[in-house]
Amino acid sequence: MSLASPSPAAAPFASPAPGRLLGREEFEERIHLIGAERYHSRHPFHKLLHGGNCNHGQVQAWVLNRYCYQSHIPLKDATLLSRMEDLDLRREWRKRIEDHDGSAGNEGGIERWLVLAEGVGLDRSYVVSGAGILPATRFAVEAYVRFVRERSLLEAIASSLTELFAPKIHQERIAGLLEHYDFANERTIAYFKRRLSEAPEDVQFGLNYVLGEARTREQQEQALAAVRFKTDVLWAQLDALYHAYVAPGHIPPGAFVPEGCVPVTELDL
Amino acid sequence: MSLASPSPAAAPFASPAPGRLLGREEFEERIHLIGAERYHSRHPFHKLLHGGNCNHGQVQAWVLNRYCYQSHIPLKDATLLSRMEDLDLRREWRKRIEDHDGSAGNEGGIERWLVLAEGVGLDRSYVVSGAGILPATRFAVEAYVRFVRERSLLEAIASSLTELFAPKIHQERIAGLLEHYDFANERTIAYFKRRLSEAPEDVQFGLNYVLGEARTREQQEQALAAVRFKTDVLWAQLDALYHAYVAPGHIPPGAFVPEGCVPVTELDL
Repeated sequence: MSLASPSPAAAPFASPAPGRLLGREEFEERIHLIGAERYHSRHPFHKLLHGGNCNHGQVQAWVLNRYCYQSHIPLKDATLLSRMEDLDLRREWRKRIEDHDGSAGNEGGIERWLVLAEGVGLDRSYVVSGAGILPATRFAVEAYVRFVRERSLLEAIASSLTELFAPKIHQERIAGLLEHYDFANERTIAYFKRRLSEAPEDVQFGLNYVLGEARTREQQEQALAAVRFKTDVLWAQLDALYHAYVAPGHIPPGAFVPEGCVPVTELDL
Repeated sequence: MSLASPSPAAAPFASPAPGRLLGREEFEERIHLIGAERYHSRHPFHKLLHGGNCNHGQVQAWVLNRYCYQSHIPLKDATLLSRMEDLDLRREWRKRIEDHDGSAGNEGGIERWLVLAEGVGLDRSYVVSGAGILPATRFAVEAYVRFVRERSLLEAIASSLTELFAPKIHQERIAGLLEHYDFANERTIAYFKRRLSEAPEDVQFGLNYVLGEARTREQQEQALAAVRFKTDVLWAQLDALYHAYVAPGHIPPGAFVPEGCVPVTELDL
């Protein structure tokens, strides 16, 4: 558990045991199993959100905090790009930065997220400033960017494979938001609709890379640990959101305070 | 909110406004004010713990997760030491590493923490392995080490000034643990007793350094932001603990599961 040679959060007790190389299908199955067990589609906050059981302040807090994650994705991809010595790999990966930052004829994912933020009544400049973000959100997001910056290319690319599980949650979210919330319309949910087509294209490339480049069992275990690490990054963000804004509703000092709420330091506990 | 030029978590909306240099006393008062408003002595988890209202599993989870923090403190101080070009400064700061890692005739703070861990029924090798630590704990601790590694020496040293507020919480803790918990005795609480004398010595040096070396208002604001950042690091750890083990009691995948508890993914929500 040292930082010099960090192990991913919630790493197994012992180091990955050496063993036989997993077959391609078995390896891919294990990646999918991580999603089934740990992807944030299973998080109680998402169940509330998609079922129409979040109040206005909770939706705002989700959109605000998730902006921190969204806005760092291109930094994550840029740091990865800066380590790819292979031209073809860079060409392929560059698309992700364009998807988020935008290009001619495409306002980009970050802009689409800001449209959503305005749609739920948040001030654009407040969102962009990063004020009010839960410290735990920031720590998790920064841990992700640092992971991609410091680990092997294989682990860095493997950590993006949670995209395998994304289309399903985006479909649930689009249906749930449109059904239950007044703010939801084609314009405000454009981010999720767009990701329905972008993510599967991206992830197919990443998956093929990981399946092909993990040439030893140790590398396969590192890739699996990277996927688990990424599920921790996503899960921890929702834990912080749930704790601050759902139950027990303890908003930490300095964080966004929805209308009608008070920070925990002002509660009479 | 970029990582290239990161602002501390929960930074104020705008950059610190330029202004007149604060007088030494006024500057010191503002540091103390941060403690009064945001130090984790005010956190609901500590109120439960010190009041005797934590169950056995909650105490174990606290000791386990706090070990992650304790065990990284010497890494934090070593990375700081590696950036101090002044010999006298290094000589002064080195003591902190010795305090935690131990030396002849002093088993050190980490060993004392492990004695506490065994005292609450945790397996030493499990604790040292880092398995079961909440991902949010790890993300916060790593954010602290990185802050000290990457920011100015002034900010790095300022982030240690939460020690100003530590003796009071240690006294409360010693009294509360001895009064309410069977595991508490002179041996298991030796860590806190020792810190009662160590922390005030250390912090006097750090405080004088910060008061003297912050020569512009901008530097003073950076130092204050560093203290706030550190309070966020401490607070976020307790938020994660509270959420997982107190209320709502949602233990994330892979984290320590006290006897009689189940992970959130097995709850019927």
